[in-house]
Amino acid sequence: MRGAVMYAPGDVRVEDRPDPQILKPTDAIIRLPATCICGSDLWPYRGFDPVEEPSPMGHEYVGIVEEVGAEVTTIKPGQFVIGSFFATDNTCEICRSGYQSSCINRVGIGSEGAQAELMRVPLADGTLVATPDVPADDLIPDFLALSDVLGTGWFGAVAAEAGPGKTVAVVGDGAVGLLGVLAAKQLGAEQIIAMSRHQPRQQLAREFGATDIVTERGNDGVAKIKELTNGLGAHSVIEAVGTQESMMQAIRSTREGGHVGYVGVAHDVQLPGEEMFFSHVHLHGGPAPVRRFLPELIDLIWNRQINPGKVFDLELPLNQAPEGYQAMDERSAIKVLLRP
Amino acid sequence: MRGAVMYAPGDVRVEDRPDPQILKPTDAIIRLPATCICGSDLWPYRGFDPVEEPSPMGHEYVGIVEEVGAEVTTIKPGQFVIGSFFATDNTCEICRSGYQSSCINRVGIGSEGAQAELMRVPLADGTLVATPDVPADDLIPDFLALSDVLGTGWFGAVAAEAGPGKTVAVVGDGAVGLLGVLAAKQLGAEQIIAMSRHQPRQQLAREFGATDIVTERGNDGVAKIKELTNGLGAHSVIEAVGTQESMMQAIRSTREGGHVGYVGVAHDVQLPGEEMFFSHVHLHGGPAPVRRFLPELIDLIWNRQINPGKVFDLELPLNQAPEGYQAMDERSAIKVLLRP
Repeated sequence: MRGAVMYAPGDVRVEDRPDPQILKPTDAIIRLPATCICGSDLWPYRGFDPVEEPSPMGHEYVGIVEEVGAEVTTIKPGQFVIGSFFATDNTCEICRSGYQSSCINRVGIGSEGAQAELMRVPLADGTLVATPDVPADDLIPDFLALSDVLGTGWFGAVAAEAGPGKTVAVVGDGAVGLLGVLAAKQLGAEQIIAMSRHQPRQQLAREFGATDIVTERGNDGVAKIKELTNGLGAHSVIEAVGTQESMMQAIRSTREGGHVGYVGVAHDVQLPGEEMFFSHVHLHGGPAPVRRFLPELIDLIWNRQINPGKVFDLELPLNQAPEGYQAMDERSAIKVLLRP
Repeated sequence: MRGAVMYAPGDVRVEDRPDPQILKPTDAIIRLPATCICGSDLWPYRGFDPVEEPSPMGHEYVGIVEEVGAEVTTIKPGQFVIGSFFATDNTCEICRSGYQSSCINRVGIGSEGAQAELMRVPLADGTLVATPDVPADDLIPDFLALSDVLGTGWFGAVAAEAGPGKTVAVVGDGAVGLLGVLAAKQLGAEQIIAMSRHQPRQQLAREFGATDIVTERGNDGVAKIKELTNGLGAHSVIEAVGTQESMMQAIRSTREGGHVGYVGVAHDVQLPGEEMFFSHVHLHGGPAPVRRFLPELIDLIWNRQINPGKVFDLELPLNQAPEGYQAMDERSAIKVLLRP
């Protein structure tokens, strides 16, 4: 089969890789009608995370089950399934509390390489959720978005306690931030402030439910959020970048007693204890437990109540994955869908 | 009147100070039957916070109302009242959301100097709550504890979401930590682990409801907490110290998805973003909004359901405040009550 492999920063190749096999009786093999490139794939692409050996890429996936191991009981060949970037047993105490991405038996999906025609999914019973039937083709991008960026934006909004009557601000206008806007809207937020200086992203934010756009960053961005909220700051702030500046912007944009939901993978971030203390904010985040939200979000997509697939503004054949990485690196595309 | 004044680190004197006066129509003057020394008074005493000029000390108080300003409507002379270390309007949006210690019109009580015979309380209507009647003398230490340390320990437990079925660990065996144990017990926690290596404090922790004592600190303390919780960590951890080591101990003792409530005033603390991210903990804390809890906690004390005054293990006349500071500095006393 064909699959994308990163050799070094800036060097992604699509090449022949061996077809995945059932290795454990809890595995499933799926065939992917679509896959995609994640903002977090750009960390190694840009040299911020090391690339120590040629690495199959991709951790976002949907697909038709081809084969299951002997112990898999809830998933059958022919079903259309969705999973997330951690394979999880969904039965341990941490899973049952809703934190599947910290499952005590979790397996990172990254090394399987979802930017490919076929993929092995460990712990299939705990990881995969099937749609009611094989979906129409036009729904595939929406389900694919659910595998990571929608689930992550949704967790950011839940962690920030977005809800009715609340003002929600979103730091970051990548796919996760934009879907944080969509999540805040679905969760009933009254005012949704998207922080973005890119016109096409501002427009998508508005489509997803943003009521206000703030183009300023850093302290100027904070001042603008306060101006829009009677000087108090937002009730809920979703942080979807993961830098020192964006974290501080999120914390300072939140009113005392408010909630910061942070889902950008923290890189070189240090949070100043004394400022945190007097800020009175609630801080929660981390790798999104997407599995928690799959049943509910599959329903919303199946019934066409949300359209998260709109974040894919560039579609390429899998063989052109290198061009996809380049487009996302240059920010000329929000998110790239690849067709194997 | 007599009152305690700090001149420099280690130099506290009790001297004649002018009687406080009504300065604003929203003020009240109260006469204190008892006052006390706070762990946070030790920061300047030990030279960790600057003492720039002779400073009246004390921010914990109960007392009989002597006089009220023209605009005070809910508090009357002769009533026994309790307030906290911030005077607050209790009507702004932040107060109404339960974060009175971040009231937009708050006034720090510290500069009034509660370690004295009389004291001015600003914003009396929003700040003071009266007991049903003048309490019996033996309840006065309990109500005095409520002014800060009980309210703070309680907020720590609430911020850590202590509750039925939960395992709660408490980092710090000062008065706040010990009353965090009491709060966790009242809130219904199943297992309460006090971290303490001081025998008299361990004993009080057990009286307040601790089921386990851990004497180890740092990584060894974390390992011990994991051992007591199936390897997962506590659901809820109350941090009541405020140092880098204690914060990390609290965060690392918490299971994924669990809650850290931090109420030790953070001094030189930096929280590592990446570790926070993958820890999956909820983090909340800050200066306790004691006012939020006053009605409920006054009830519990009035009905003799809790006895937080037990944290006072040394009682001295106000004139011996210097000896009181010394005893707390040496940790030979948990908390010192002063009788004006």
